Amino acid sequence: MKLTILGCYSATPRALTNTTSQVLEINNHMFLIDCGEGTQVHLRKHKIKFNRIKHVFISHLHGDHFFGLVGLISTFRLLKREADLHVYGPKGIKEIVTLQMKLADSWTNYNLYFHELSSKESQLVYQDDVVEVHTIPLEHRIYTNGYLFKEKEGERKLNVDLAEEANINVAYYRKLKQGFDVENEDGVLIRNESVTSDAEKPKSYAFCSDTVYKEDIVPIIKDVDVLYHESTFLEKHAHLGPKTKHSTAKEAASIAKQANVGTLVLGHFSTRYGGLDGFKTEAEEVFDNVKLSGDGKVFDFS
Amino acid sequence: MKLTILGCYSATPRALTNTTSQVLEINNHMFLIDCGEGTQVHLRKHKIKFNRIKHVFISHLHGDHFFGLVGLISTFRLLKREADLHVYGPKGIKEIVTLQMKLADSWTNYNLYFHELSSKESQLVYQDDVVEVHTIPLEHRIYTNGYLFKEKEGERKLNVDLAEEANINVAYYRKLKQGFDVENEDGVLIRNESVTSDAEKPKSYAFCSDTVYKEDIVPIIKDVDVLYHESTFLEKHAHLGPKTKHSTAKEAASIAKQANVGTLVLGHFSTRYGGLDGFKTEAEEVFDNVKLSGDGKVFDFS
Repeated sequence: MKLTILGCYSATPRALTNTTSQVLEINNHMFLIDCGEGTQVHLRKHKIKFNRIKHVFISHLHGDHFFGLVGLISTFRLLKREADLHVYGPKGIKEIVTLQMKLADSWTNYNLYFHELSSKESQLVYQDDVVEVHTIPLEHRIYTNGYLFKEKEGERKLNVDLAEEANINVAYYRKLKQGFDVENEDGVLIRNESVTSDAEKPKSYAFCSDTVYKEDIVPIIKDVDVLYHESTFLEKHAHLGPKTKHSTAKEAASIAKQANVGTLVLGHFSTRYGGLDGFKTEAEEVFDNVKLSGDGKVFDFS
Repeated sequence: MKLTILGCYSATPRALTNTTSQVLEINNHMFLIDCGEGTQVHLRKHKIKFNRIKHVFISHLHGDHFFGLVGLISTFRLLKREADLHVYGPKGIKEIVTLQMKLADSWTNYNLYFHELSSKESQLVYQDDVVEVHTIPLEHRIYTNGYLFKEKEGERKLNVDLAEEANINVAYYRKLKQGFDVENEDGVLIRNESVTSDAEKPKSYAFCSDTVYKEDIVPIIKDVDVLYHESTFLEKHAHLGPKTKHSTAKEAASIAKQANVGTLVLGHFSTRYGGLDGFKTEAEEVFDNVKLSGDGKVFDFS
């Protein structure tokens, strides 16, 4: 599981700071999460192949999280993309994009699907054989979802040497990987555990931005490997949190602790502070494993 | 008169090439012309004060000319702008921006005026004491206007030494600047030309992008000091012009020659070519004074 931060600052794009966008690679999928202005350029800078992105998840309709979407969709068209593209985001996102296509007389040549969200409960919005994606209802000034990406439980790992030694016919290997006991060539029942080991623990990633401190999300993101949680403010501006519906680094850490996550990645920093060290220091008062995101940073969680 | 090119490439923004946007400074005005994705960041890089921009002119609703507009408007709001902002552009531009404001629940705190255009004739769209702006109807795949920026005829320059010598009361200086003859303190009629000289020649700038080769614009832009004309293609791709409704460098030069302009600035280059030299060479076969735009280039036409 690999996370590339294209932008991690709040409010407005600047010469040296980008607004929110990130790419999550998980089990051969490449998911784009949020799409602030300039995202297509940042994807190019990171040499991320446009065609590998088939799913875009938008948290909410504030500009710093989606003003780059229409440009990305339009560029895909100009580059003669053929692969389908699925966009998940709040109700209204389809109208915004299609209105601009209509006025530009520029419809996509590829299939573009919008999955508009309006539920306030966590929903399964995507799944295939290997991953599933759920919404994480957040509380912000407008309707907002985080997203939970989870690998599905994989097959058990077969030790082929042990299986051969146990004289099991290869026709049964599939059943062994699925966890069944099988009979060997001599009619002896072989216990699954004697020739297989546990599947790798499925990885999981929770993206939570933007939101006020909200303990309701704890059960949804319980035990995830990695939590990206917004931390717009330091403690000295904690009073701005409830008003603007943002969180502090310490609040993000408190959520991470309650949810027993593996790693907390902080982001969505206000640009009012000189540096980012304060975010880490304040979060570490509450939770041990804290990382700071940064534009262009790549995290390998394999 | 000063022209700052923020972006001069066609189609899509890339790591090293920006889409169309430029700032024209003329007679203490700062006009933003087109606003491709990322324009707000390029304005910051050039340290152009946002508050000095009061008028934005959009040629047409293809993304490479306006996808940065909603972000700019939104950023002005976040920065608590108070000055009015006027946006000129094709019908539909207001709906695109206001739909996104509505869904973001983020209305501007400053006055935002849209001046939507749909006429196919050249129109006066803005004027004050010192400048006027006219549309230049262009022919592209969708409704498109160029813009003609013209200083108004200034007042005559008064030579105060000569006026004093001629014993003219200062109360008459205003009339002298306006071109009138006046009586001096001794009742003698003083001819205006004896104490004043001609006003500086008013400057003019025509922005023409995007358009197929279109001689109809020649009378509108006749004798302008500077013409920015799109030149998407070199001659070897001239056949693409009529189809995509773009021009070649040579066609831009032909328009410049027919209109007897002072300087031709080429732009809106396709990124398919290795460099830009070919554009200049081909245009110079037809017209002498050719300049190439470039992202970040500043032209001083004073």
